[in-house]
Amino acid sequence: MRGGGTPSPALVFEKHMTQTKAQYRVRFEPDHVEVSVAEGANLMQSAIAAGVHINANCGGAGTCGTCNVLVKEGHVESHQTSKVSAADYKRGMRQSCQTRVKSDLVVEVPIESRLETSVLTQEKLTTAAIGQTLATGWRFVPPVEKRLLELTPPSLEDNASDLSRLLRCIEKSCGPTNIEVDFGVVNKLASVVRAGDWKATATFLDDDGLRRLINIEPGDTRGTNYSLAFDIGTTAVRGQLLDLARGSALEQAIDYNGQISYGADVISRIAQRGKPGGREKLQKAVVETLNKLIKEMVGLADIGIEKVNHVVVAANTVMVHLLLGLDPQYLRLSPYVPTVSNPPLVKARELGIDVAEHVYLYAVPSVASYVGGDIVAGILGSGIYQRPKVTLYIDIGTNGEIVVGNRDWMVTSAASAGPTFEGGGIKCGMLATTGAIEDFELKAKNAEPGLSVIGGVKAKGICGSGIINMAAVMLRTGLVSQDGKFNADAATRRIRQGEDGFEYLLVPARESATGEDIVFTEIDMTNLIRAKAALYAGYQTLVKSVGSRMENIDEVVIAGTFGSRLNIENAITIGLLPDMPREKFIFIGNGSLLGARLISYSADLLRESRRVAAMMTNLELSERADFMTNYTAAMFLPHTDAGLFPSVKTGGVR
Amino acid sequence: MRGGGTPSPALVFEKHMTQTKAQYRVRFEPDHVEVSVAEGANLMQSAIAAGVHINANCGGAGTCGTCNVLVKEGHVESHQTSKVSAADYKRGMRQSCQTRVKSDLVVEVPIESRLETSVLTQEKLTTAAIGQTLATGWRFVPPVEKRLLELTPPSLEDNASDLSRLLRCIEKSCGPTNIEVDFGVVNKLASVVRAGDWKATATFLDDDGLRRLINIEPGDTRGTNYSLAFDIGTTAVRGQLLDLARGSALEQAIDYNGQISYGADVISRIAQRGKPGGREKLQKAVVETLNKLIKEMVGLADIGIEKVNHVVVAANTVMVHLLLGLDPQYLRLSPYVPTVSNPPLVKARELGIDVAEHVYLYAVPSVASYVGGDIVAGILGSGIYQRPKVTLYIDIGTNGEIVVGNRDWMVTSAASAGPTFEGGGIKCGMLATTGAIEDFELKAKNAEPGLSVIGGVKAKGICGSGIINMAAVMLRTGLVSQDGKFNADAATRRIRQGEDGFEYLLVPARESATGEDIVFTEIDMTNLIRAKAALYAGYQTLVKSVGSRMENIDEVVIAGTFGSRLNIENAITIGLLPDMPREKFIFIGNGSLLGARLISYSADLLRESRRVAAMMTNLELSERADFMTNYTAAMFLPHTDAGLFPSVKTGGVR
Repeated sequence: MRGGGTPSPALVFEKHMTQTKAQYRVRFEPDHVEVSVAEGANLMQSAIAAGVHINANCGGAGTCGTCNVLVKEGHVESHQTSKVSAADYKRGMRQSCQTRVKSDLVVEVPIESRLETSVLTQEKLTTAAIGQTLATGWRFVPPVEKRLLELTPPSLEDNASDLSRLLRCIEKSCGPTNIEVDFGVVNKLASVVRAGDWKATATFLDDDGLRRLINIEPGDTRGTNYSLAFDIGTTAVRGQLLDLARGSALEQAIDYNGQISYGADVISRIAQRGKPGGREKLQKAVVETLNKLIKEMVGLADIGIEKVNHVVVAANTVMVHLLLGLDPQYLRLSPYVPTVSNPPLVKARELGIDVAEHVYLYAVPSVASYVGGDIVAGILGSGIYQRPKVTLYIDIGTNGEIVVGNRDWMVTSAASAGPTFEGGGIKCGMLATTGAIEDFELKAKNAEPGLSVIGGVKAKGICGSGIINMAAVMLRTGLVSQDGKFNADAATRRIRQGEDGFEYLLVPARESATGEDIVFTEIDMTNLIRAKAALYAGYQTLVKSVGSRMENIDEVVIAGTFGSRLNIENAITIGLLPDMPREKFIFIGNGSLLGARLISYSADLLRESRRVAAMMTNLELSERADFMTNYTAAMFLPHTDAGLFPSVKTGGVR
Repeated sequence: MRGGGTPSPALVFEKHMTQTKAQYRVRFEPDHVEVSVAEGANLMQSAIAAGVHINANCGGAGTCGTCNVLVKEGHVESHQTSKVSAADYKRGMRQSCQTRVKSDLVVEVPIESRLETSVLTQEKLTTAAIGQTLATGWRFVPPVEKRLLELTPPSLEDNASDLSRLLRCIEKSCGPTNIEVDFGVVNKLASVVRAGDWKATATFLDDDGLRRLINIEPGDTRGTNYSLAFDIGTTAVRGQLLDLARGSALEQAIDYNGQISYGADVISRIAQRGKPGGREKLQKAVVETLNKLIKEMVGLADIGIEKVNHVVVAANTVMVHLLLGLDPQYLRLSPYVPTVSNPPLVKARELGIDVAEHVYLYAVPSVASYVGGDIVAGILGSGIYQRPKVTLYIDIGTNGEIVVGNRDWMVTSAASAGPTFEGGGIKCGMLATTGAIEDFELKAKNAEPGLSVIGGVKAKGICGSGIINMAAVMLRTGLVSQDGKFNADAATRRIRQGEDGFEYLLVPARESATGEDIVFTEIDMTNLIRAKAALYAGYQTLVKSVGSRMENIDEVVIAGTFGSRLNIENAITIGLLPDMPREKFIFIGNGSLLGARLISYSADLLRESRRVAAMMTNLELSERADFMTNYTAAMFLPHTDAGLFPSVKTGGVR
């Protein structure tokens, strides 16, 4: 797969240089990437040509000062600008967009000029509460990377095939690498290289040391490189459209997983698979949801779908099996064996996903049958696996995954909470989207509810955070008892007898977006108690199983997308979270999607995702007798053992 | 992609051993393959388990003596049998099927016990004239290889995924290798490993250091491993169904290339591609031919098509492009650039070929636009690239490829001869199949023709060797003049005026299989002269271009499938072959198919095919002025320059 030793492929910016100019080698650290440029080449352009990402907020106009680099060896032409202090200038710092190459160089791109710094800043802005809990030490080099190739046109003296020519040029530009060429590239190669007048952009997929050439386009298309990141939950699917050229999320979308018509939890989905055509139906259902979200996001961003080059999916093990069309039945039978925990590469289109033919899907590896890539993505994205302090990670969702550990060890388990926290199985429940009640208070003067609705519109229903906040307030004020019964004697007319027993009227029909009363029933409250009890018992059992105690936990990281208004105090009040010092809690929003997004940004993190999955040990709660005891004990608000929640004051009587 | 450090996968034969027996390591040389076996294991079975091929004509009964091996280190239990001489026994030779392992061992499998020896013997028997002209030094290890894997069933203590379990077992059995897993394997993995009770046979495709897991079957299926080898010619397609477990050809089949309705030569095919849907039609046409031949061979051999694991194709560059669905237009435009000379892996089914989904197609790499993988396969199979003597290789076919060189250098070219030698463009021409006249003589007593018909049936037409032999006899006896005109005054009533000028009646309608006269016309004779002139001028120009002379050629290897009765004397008489000492000529039959077959047998030769293609230098005859001069001079029987053919006596006058 190697070409012969013929003329060097010129890099794009060299075209503007005359042939007589000297050629210099510029090495960029810490990436160890070298590029050959003509004398006088712009240093920032040289970095771009080498595939080294440098921040350039002003686009190279010299006004922002974000592209500074340290020239460690060699000579450059660059006067001292206002963006470089005299001291920095003296030690070799230069504004790269204002610098010309005058000899062989060794250049260090400092951390503040690297694109990942810009990405990290954005991540911290978008996830306000994220604080220090983000994986660090990775480079912004997406697993799908584009390279501009300028080929030497063929001649009678050098009439090697188009593919040999291309591989030769890649070797010159990227160094000797083992490259696997997808047949689809060959199919259009002849027309593409000629359409771009022997200038073409190659798209590579890097996976564990193997570099795969997946696409080729005429001309320079490096500015358009997108990917899709998905969190496929049992109840809901959340997606983001990412701009890999700039390291930012362009759009996001959420919808119920189309599989919910086949059952609310993973067990009922697995059972469904045994029916005729069951596997195909389940696969089709989730793929249709993905396609709907893709269409929505790509439409909003107004980009061509052919510009999307990667799909990264974080999902629990059952969801991954169903997405890949694999039989999940062995997942629920002892000894709980997945078919695959680290799925090999698969073309997204082979699964029915509406993206271009060249796009591969990466499913974040899973740990066990009930601990999937979603939790691995969360641990990865939040950087728990990198830090010495012992962290308890709780993903508040249908599958209820929990992890305890640090950079040296991690134990994980899943406590099926059901869809309650995502608004599923709740009479007026809904996902945390526009129209969802996400916060609740009782006004002091008239004990009437004050509601916060996402988007500030009329309410359609109530989402996970709304449910938690409401239940906590009601418990404190005595509207609901510790066993989850409404207090019919309370001084409010909102508690009433409904079709299914007592219920609380949140929004009357005339004020709701649906034209129907929005209520929260006693049955809903029972579901909430079950859900929070499963989670509490889960991490209680898990922490004890590793010989530790809740007091020894340094940090509690909470993930979930049941509404951004998670109130830690309220979650403790109902016994969902442990009664610990409040400063130990950090809420990171959707951890799975965060991990999937960061993997899209960094091949380093893609590699790390495999290591993280491998370092997690699974504990089967169903095999532990104390889990059921703990679960039953937790079926109370906040808990049957009041000593576990010393700071919680309830308004009712037991 | 690595599993953890859990219980070792037992190899099949270990099952019969008790758990308490000691385990020993046996290393087989020269393959450097190690296997772990229990004390007392049978040595031949150990070799099989290790994937080392040993001849065992009697199947291990101890009666044939073909499985002898040399025990170089360690202890075995084996008495001296009649198949091992006292001297051999003393130096460590043992009959492997009668030997038991008693310690760690190092065992050498001598060349006479290796399966390739048996394959070579068969090859020499089937191609009688092949003599010493076969590639040597390769091991019989097919690029698609099967391995039996006995997995440790999962337990609660070890509930790694099926795929991790499989990869762990592969690593134990094959050593640490980078394995790429095809998604199709994952798709059926769960059911396959359970159907075979955790015993499964894995099929690997080895390609340039990358090992790809392409299929998995329940139980032990090592006995059934087949491949298809094809020579796709411009005029005809020849296929063989190969048994990779035994190293033999089971069936063969031949048919016209379905593309001939779109033009007789590569140039007209390339022109056809520009018409609407042209590329698709051309691809479909040749794929239909392949599918017809596959159906025929698989039917005759009575094997399931799902047992075919590989397709190897040797074809000229245009045929490869059309098979792969690539645009061939740049092949015929200066500077004659192929899209691909070394095609990446492609699923055969993706091209429409009717084999199982897991099967990949390997196209032997080509040298240039008009020198393809067919000629590389011929050079490879005949071993010319391995020997010091200078060889002229002539492939007598439509494309007329020629090579001159030895193990240090090779120059190649193509001299388009047209389809004459394969019976194309000849009024009553046909492929060398049943019913074809393949030899011709004139009976002394009545000057009536004596014909040899393939299959001993009534004649349907005349094939390439028949045409050559007939023309030579006619030239010697004066029935035809040196410029290819029939002698109307000759003492035979068989020369007559036909529809298209003079013609020779070979078989009257009442004696033919077609019910029509079988004739050979003056136009046919002109086509033959053009075809042989193109070839002669081709190698004449090529030999001169490398600064050599015909006298310096040590050996002439002739390939082609125009009939097995090629008469060297006759071919020289008409000026197709050079007038050289007859002992320098070797006819190897279909060289392309020979090469494709050997590549199917040996991953070593697959690797070598890339090296051979890379070491060949192409010479564009169309760019050489002397080629046309030589061509015009050769438009005579045998040649306008009689001095070039001193041994040829013609019967006519000039």
